[in-house]
Amino acid sequence: MSRQQIKVAVVGGTGYTGVECLRLLVNHPNVELVAVTSRAEAGQAVSALYPNLRGHLDLAFTEPKVEALAAADVVFFATPNGTAMKMAPALLEAGVRVIDLAADFRIKDVALWQQWYGMEHACPELLDEAVYGLPEVNREATRTARLVANPGCYPTAVQLGFLPLIEEDLASIDHLIADVKSGVSGAGRQANVGTLLCEATESMRAYAVAGHRHLPEVKQGLAIAAGGETGLTFVPHLAPMIRGIHATLYANVSDQTVDLQALFEQRYQNEPFVDLLPEGVLPETRSVKGSNMCRISVVRPQGGDVVVVLSVIDNLVKGAAGQAIHNMNIMFGLDECAGLNAVGLMP
Amino acid sequence: MSRQQIKVAVVGGTGYTGVECLRLLVNHPNVELVAVTSRAEAGQAVSALYPNLRGHLDLAFTEPKVEALAAADVVFFATPNGTAMKMAPALLEAGVRVIDLAADFRIKDVALWQQWYGMEHACPELLDEAVYGLPEVNREATRTARLVANPGCYPTAVQLGFLPLIEEDLASIDHLIADVKSGVSGAGRQANVGTLLCEATESMRAYAVAGHRHLPEVKQGLAIAAGGETGLTFVPHLAPMIRGIHATLYANVSDQTVDLQALFEQRYQNEPFVDLLPEGVLPETRSVKGSNMCRISVVRPQGGDVVVVLSVIDNLVKGAAGQAIHNMNIMFGLDECAGLNAVGLMP
Amino acid sequence: MSRQQIKVAVVGGTGYTGVECLRLLVNHPNVELVAVTSRAEAGQAVSALYPNLRGHLDLAFTEPKVEALAAADVVFFATPNGTAMKMAPALLEAGVRVIDLAADFRIKDVALWQQWYGMEHACPELLDEAVYGLPEVNREATRTARLVANPGCYPTAVQLGFLPLIEEDLASIDHLIADVKSGVSGAGRQANVGTLLCEATESMRAYAVAGHRHLPEVKQGLAIAAGGETGLTFVPHLAPMIRGIHATLYANVSDQTVDLQALFEQRYQNEPFVDLLPEGVLPETRSVKGSNMCRISVVRPQGGDVVVVLSVIDNLVKGAAGQAIHNMNIMFGLDECAGLNAVGLMP
Amino acid sequence: MSRQQIKVAVVGGTGYTGVECLRLLVNHPNVELVAVTSRAEAGQAVSALYPNLRGHLDLAFTEPKVEALAAADVVFFATPNGTAMKMAPALLEAGVRVIDLAADFRIKDVALWQQWYGMEHACPELLDEAVYGLPEVNREATRTARLVANPGCYPTAVQLGFLPLIEEDLASIDHLIADVKSGVSGAGRQANVGTLLCEATESMRAYAVAGHRHLPEVKQGLAIAAGGETGLTFVPHLAPMIRGIHATLYANVSDQTVDLQALFEQRYQNEPFVDLLPEGVLPETRSVKGSNMCRISVVRPQGGDVVVVLSVIDNLVKGAAGQAIHNMNIMFGLDECAGLNAVGLMP
Repeated sequence: MSRQQIKVAVVGGTGYTGVECLRLLVNHPNVELVAVTSRAEAGQAVSALYPNLRGHLDLAFTEPKVEALAAADVVFFATPNGTAMKMAPALLEAGVRVIDLAADFRIKDVALWQQWYGMEHACPELLDEAVYGLPEVNREATRTARLVANPGCYPTAVQLGFLPLIEEDLASIDHLIADVKSGVSGAGRQANVGTLLCEATESMRAYAVAGHRHLPEVKQGLAIAAGGETGLTFVPHLAPMIRGIHATLYANVSDQTVDLQALFEQRYQNEPFVDLLPEGVLPETRSVKGSNMCRISVVRPQGGDVVVVLSVIDNLVKGAAGQAIHNMNIMFGLDECAGLNAVGLMP
Repeated sequence: MSRQQIKVAVVGGTGYTGVECLRLLVNHPNVELVAVTSRAEAGQAVSALYPNLRGHLDLAFTEPKVEALAAADVVFFATPNGTAMKMAPALLEAGVRVIDLAADFRIKDVALWQQWYGMEHACPELLDEAVYGLPEVNREATRTARLVANPGCYPTAVQLGFLPLIEEDLASIDHLIADVKSGVSGAGRQANVGTLLCEATESMRAYAVAGHRHLPEVKQGLAIAAGGETGLTFVPHLAPMIRGIHATLYANVSDQTVDLQALFEQRYQNEPFVDLLPEGVLPETRSVKGSNMCRISVVRPQGGDVVVVLSVIDNLVKGAAGQAIHNMNIMFGLDECAGLNAVGLMP
Repeated sequence: MSRQQIKVAVVGGTGYTGVECLRLLVNHPNVELVAVTSRAEAGQAVSALYPNLRGHLDLAFTEPKVEALAAADVVFFATPNGTAMKMAPALLEAGVRVIDLAADFRIKDVALWQQWYGMEHACPELLDEAVYGLPEVNREATRTARLVANPGCYPTAVQLGFLPLIEEDLASIDHLIADVKSGVSGAGRQANVGTLLCEATESMRAYAVAGHRHLPEVKQGLAIAAGGETGLTFVPHLAPMIRGIHATLYANVSDQTVDLQALFEQRYQNEPFVDLLPEGVLPETRSVKGSNMCRISVVRPQGGDVVVVLSVIDNLVKGAAGQAIHNMNIMFGLDECAGLNAVGLMP
Repeated sequence: MSRQQIKVAVVGGTGYTGVECLRLLVNHPNVELVAVTSRAEAGQAVSALYPNLRGHLDLAFTEPKVEALAAADVVFFATPNGTAMKMAPALLEAGVRVIDLAADFRIKDVALWQQWYGMEHACPELLDEAVYGLPEVNREATRTARLVANPGCYPTAVQLGFLPLIEEDLASIDHLIADVKSGVSGAGRQANVGTLLCEATESMRAYAVAGHRHLPEVKQGLAIAAGGETGLTFVPHLAPMIRGIHATLYANVSDQTVDLQALFEQRYQNEPFVDLLPEGVLPETRSVKGSNMCRISVVRPQGGDVVVVLSVIDNLVKGAAGQAIHNMNIMFGLDECAGLNAVGLMP
């Protein structure tokens, strides 16, 4: 009996999200990597740019052309916003499935998307069909999806933390707070003064407090769970580390009788990549470094009305490449955990 | 005309708070260091333990004895909680002024203190007299104080951020949230697995979510400003860096007409160590590294009801040693900024 | 056809070397973990101490008892120096193979060992039999070994860098210099002031310049290759990072005609875990983070007499747990790379 | 009696060297900052770019024009290589003294300079007059210098470590090795992928092994001390930290009778910014973070022929801005330590 093999192409393999896809895909038992594209690096060996891949991947970067990509069963877009939407229609037409790790297909409301992303959408007709690939919410729809919008890193951590409270209608949804700390890799591999080691290490700062692009994405997800608009304050911070997101979530839960620990455990008991920690144990981002796990704790300080949920992920794995592979596994009927068994690198 | 000289002793000079006092005091124009004590290191040169002080300080550690300390004009206690309260009565009796950088005299309610600190208070009769040394609140009382309780690092950052809103009765005080990130030096210099580099770097985690000792201290300060109890949720986090506190504060402010920027600017316009950033500029902890400044921004995201205040300090300076020296300057009628002019080390 | 399964026990599973063995072993296709011991933590779930292992390992720590360990096919000792030598004789007697990740069996000269390690050796009669487990040198002997002395982290990086020069008699062996930089995890997980984040981050320092325990180990290996004593100066440094060793090696090579790049490539062409970088490309430790690879470059600056070899490994993998598993794979006739395919975590 | 006041201008105030000059100059008791220039940022407040300077400096960046700069007593050039040489002649003509923190005037041999820096020198006629501003060597010449070439960071650490051996003719000068580790700030504030936090933290790597621009500068200094050419191998490394240089120097010293500790102590006994550590104590870069000190240890491992010298500085202070101010103090007859008393920031 031969093992199922999927032909995979990665468009935009030079950024951190792209190389993380490659790191995971080269050891995936059901994957054959057929192309890694980069306009800027076409012709160069991928492992010359990322020496960690030496001995694991022999491909050179190629130009991103639909004809060539059509040989794949699925194409991952690890590109800047606005790229996937230009190539997705032709690829879908050619029978190739598409997973976009950027934001092109995440927001259903095209006007809202255009407002936050500052460009016109190239294929709004696909937004309805696109499945928002948070497996813990949309697993069934993903099985048959042609086009998956892989969630953002912040939205993954925040939604997984809030959902159990909101689905059960326990939280005051008009006053939710998400204080989120991210490692610097979330800002990508662009040369940029603000993310130089000398600017970003040994310091903490908030940014985009007035409004971050992930806000409408989170609000869309919470609104679906709540059955109506939520009032969310979302403050992202840059933490002096490479990987990791730590979401600290605050919600008013006046019902004092509910067993929050049991509620969260039940919600995620069958989820391979959400790990509810025992009562009293708090998560740290390093426990998921390099792994696809989301670890969550829920606390009600001093038995008051405010519930605090702590949710940690590796922004490049569960917040990007790992979740994309999880979606691929679901789309192709593979073992959901295939290629995603790595243990967090600790220490 | 000779310059006023103050004789200063530091009790507990081996911890991070103690050495930070020394770092600042050796260059203070009005200070003569007369003793640095440490039971464990008595006899050893201070600069053998802290080579950065080589050439700046020639003292050896001595045993902490009241008779010897009585030669000082003021004694700084940079000791664990529970030490200052044992020696302060005798020192005050001897006419020496006392600044405690630990928590012994911060909480007015002795029962509350004993509950959170898990020991009996040795001199509850001094609690009334002790001045809580947040200069931006208690400058006048500090001028004549014999005994100053230097605020904790978290309480300094949190109170300075909330006070303008609460003093003006603008915030819903039953639902305040303080999400605070601290560098690891706040945990002290004790050998401890949790603060090893390999455990604490490249990671973020919350701790003491169920209740941290600084909670009653902050609540006491806010209650005085509010004229009544506040409902505060306080979640401290360990950030992978040495120094710095970043407090992200959330308050409901339904009054949409108030000019928050003007309000904060006015509140702190005469304060030498609070710097309100221009509208739209957000603080980073590194801008205050090694300096006594607190930098604050205030934002109302999307014009909603929730106001976000960002407040950063160096936990060892404005959150400990620098504020203690500021208090000393006030107590002895010196220039408030004497010895505290250092610019933040950036990069 | 069923896959070969090896029963493995890890003695001393609480330190960084031990948990790294566990991280790699839980995903090894031919391994069944049967015991993880720790006197101090006996009874506690392993994953309670190392939450990255939650969902990957269900064992609790047990007491290290020979009777129980005898059920394993091979026992890894990830213990302090002096532990394995006390249990190894009984285990070997019971037919169990032993891999010691500490130093007990690395030095053939028992007097030299006792001088550097400051204790009496418990079973000097086993020193001859013990195979020094540097696969690139002793692969054949390892196949049939009952007892393997897994090399130290510094010795692995230094020997792999020097060997091609010394085996070919190209270097002046009386004047070799190894300037080596290590991440802090090499110091272990003991609570220790010197390795606190606040002491070790944002700083570089040398240590043990007068003499480090890995010096005689390296000299023994070089002497075997050289056919005589070498004069080696070895200076270890602590670098502000968790993982990684960067060895910078200096040797006088007067023969200007030798093609060093070809020499090194040839020496390691069949080695799965030594990667000679192309001419002009220099290694960085992060390219091997979490992986078992050693990456090497060789340079002759300005065409002079001094040759510089750069050799990087992850001290916990190729410098400890990964190399131990490589040795196990060899000992049991498994695919040498089994369980060791992980790509370096970059970024 | 009024205190002497020097009018100082800083050309190129946006880089790390420039802002470090500003950080130190704003608190210098004898300095009035009259201009800070930056073509790119002209018109913007300096403190808008460097918020640590808020409250300390009220200047805005101006265009670098000779007429304006001529109002200063001394101009610091904290510019890229090739800038100072274009403006220095006119400034000197106008009676202004010049301190160049870049490399334009460091190398006496103009052909050699042009070879390593890849441009034509604009005023080779000034090279003879320029004083190489290593105060421990050229203090007397600096007193009357119009033009000072401030040494590079690596050359400062390396020369101070080697000089006592070479001046006394103790080392084999044909075979010197300098293995040097630098913090990332040495690479400047340019947006650059290689110095992003995600590329440079948690990693060590060597660079420019084939030849670094500081090599001819060090060799020039050593040749003067030795009275002839030296054979130096110089390997710089990037360490994952902001500030600090750790030079590990190796020299053959066959004379076993010389008391190296005494020799080094004597050489630097009157130097305010070189601190020879007691025998057996090794330096760490953090002990000089933010300070102008160079700390040195000398060790002869196992009493052999190879002597190891460890020399640490803060690359931005003793390796750049602090040394420039030290030179200014000497040039203007001020207290040599004026403005340079800061204690290293530890922790």
